[in-house]
Amino acid sequence: MTTVCVPSDDVRAALSGLAVETIIWDWNSEPPPGLDRVVFAVPPYMAGPPPAESVARLPALQVVQLLSAGYEAWPPMLRPGVVLCNGRGIHGGSTAELAVGGLIAVLRELPKFAELQRQGSWQPDRTDGLDGKRVLVLGVGDIGSRVVTAVAAFGAHVTQVGRTARAGVLSMDAVPSLLADQDVVVLALPYSAATHHLVDAAFLAALPDGAVVVNVARGAVVDTDALTAELSARRLRAFLDVTDPEPLPAGHPLWRVPNLLLTPHIGGGTARWLDRAHALLREQVGRFVAGEPLRNVVG
Amino acid sequence: MTTVCVPSDDVRAALSGLAVETIIWDWNSEPPPGLDRVVFAVPPYMAGPPPAESVARLPALQVVQLLSAGYEAWPPMLRPGVVLCNGRGIHGGSTAELAVGGLIAVLRELPKFAELQRQGSWQPDRTDGLDGKRVLVLGVGDIGSRVVTAVAAFGAHVTQVGRTARAGVLSMDAVPSLLADQDVVVLALPYSAATHHLVDAAFLAALPDGAVVVNVARGAVVDTDALTAELSARRLRAFLDVTDPEPLPAGHPLWRVPNLLLTPHIGGGTARWLDRAHALLREQVGRFVAGEPLRNVVG
Repeated sequence: MTTVCVPSDDVRAALSGLAVETIIWDWNSEPPPGLDRVVFAVPPYMAGPPPAESVARLPALQVVQLLSAGYEAWPPMLRPGVVLCNGRGIHGGSTAELAVGGLIAVLRELPKFAELQRQGSWQPDRTDGLDGKRVLVLGVGDIGSRVVTAVAAFGAHVTQVGRTARAGVLSMDAVPSLLADQDVVVLALPYSAATHHLVDAAFLAALPDGAVVVNVARGAVVDTDALTAELSARRLRAFLDVTDPEPLPAGHPLWRVPNLLLTPHIGGGTARWLDRAHALLREQVGRFVAGEPLRNVVG
Repeated sequence: MTTVCVPSDDVRAALSGLAVETIIWDWNSEPPPGLDRVVFAVPPYMAGPPPAESVARLPALQVVQLLSAGYEAWPPMLRPGVVLCNGRGIHGGSTAELAVGGLIAVLRELPKFAELQRQGSWQPDRTDGLDGKRVLVLGVGDIGSRVVTAVAAFGAHVTQVGRTARAGVLSMDAVPSLLADQDVVVLALPYSAATHHLVDAAFLAALPDGAVVVNVARGAVVDTDALTAELSARRLRAFLDVTDPEPLPAGHPLWRVPNLLLTPHIGGGTARWLDRAHALLREQVGRFVAGEPLRNVVG
């Protein structure tokens, strides 16, 4: 019998009918009996990196299945040979949707029109829009690919960048020479040492006036101080669903800059995300039990 | 020499280098000399239907080229044999972008988060989203087709409806039986006697609780009173870029209903729309002079 560690009753229910034993544990509270039998573990969503002693309580661990797309905190915590799988596909559609919706809201000035609506005032205006815009999408995963399809449908000219070049995708090396010709940059790439503060003062300075930075990746892909300076000067515009620090504390300068639309990391967490998460978990545990290859292996 | 009537200096400039004579007239002010030679006419954008006496001043008229996608006011005004062309392609990208952006803003509650941003308050929440949603797109033109591509990229299941059935498109007759199974209805079809108040009390009553109505077509495709009642009861949600009446007068009930995001008919009129309009006009006049078939013929 395969023993699976799950974070909550709803995940246990999602695995019902599979030939597995489930133990509920949140990786933090008092450890229940039987953790030494756990071979497949699902940590709680967005609970942050695990304490080292929690990992040590799972000596038989073979697979960690995350519910997030991001996984940057995990590889250093796991023993060699433990397979790490992320939640690719759970959040891609809704995160891409928020990236594009937030971008359109900035370009078409939807917050301003919502305010005019509250005032009962009909004031049409010619706004900016995506048609003919040059959009640089950093990231070739589920999120980035969906963003590319959508903005292209609205008439934007898209350049997509990934870690390595391939058909239709440029490598990260090409980015510096591209920035001067971009109207929009969408950040949809994994956070790592290589992408920490990728968008720094020099990156931002290379963008033309009025360019829009969209971040649905991780806050620290952007140097917050450098972006704050560009927004305060009203030289650039931005939509951010993630910030550094996060949550953004009360009184932080980013709350008060102009030219910014900010949402509190709601990208992947739509009301239906648990349905998608449960479907993925059920598939992955089923594959593990059957000895089939797992999906979404990232480490 | 072909004589073209244009509404403004910028349109005249767009035609420079073509072998045509241009006369500037807005179809309303004192008629300039030479209108009897006009064979190709471009009326002003969004100026409303022309006075009959203005059309009578153009006895040699062969083509009317509109700058709008909608053309419902024109066919009854024109003599038989005068070709009517609309502005398909000028507004499609930006109108589709606004339809999808407004829809996402409603589902992801962007106006609420913009307000929390003003308050400096980080309050994540699980919102609604397009993934897994059933979306009915009424309209198979440039706007509707772009909407279909974008919402499908975010994981929605799309059904598209046109006047007549074809591959991948159902006919309008199918609509009543579809409504109970739709989470979103996007209106992107021409206004005509057949579509006047298409979305009436019975249409809305057939939609499930929480469904979202998006209108980027013409205000009178929707029965405003019926929609106002559904929104006031908080049973349905809506994004409207067009209203009936339009402009929406101060104090109109629609300004105060819940569950509504409203923009003042800004769909097609982005800052770059004139570039697109000029490109189309130059192409069409060039085709006319060369005796080639015109694009966008609608009547």
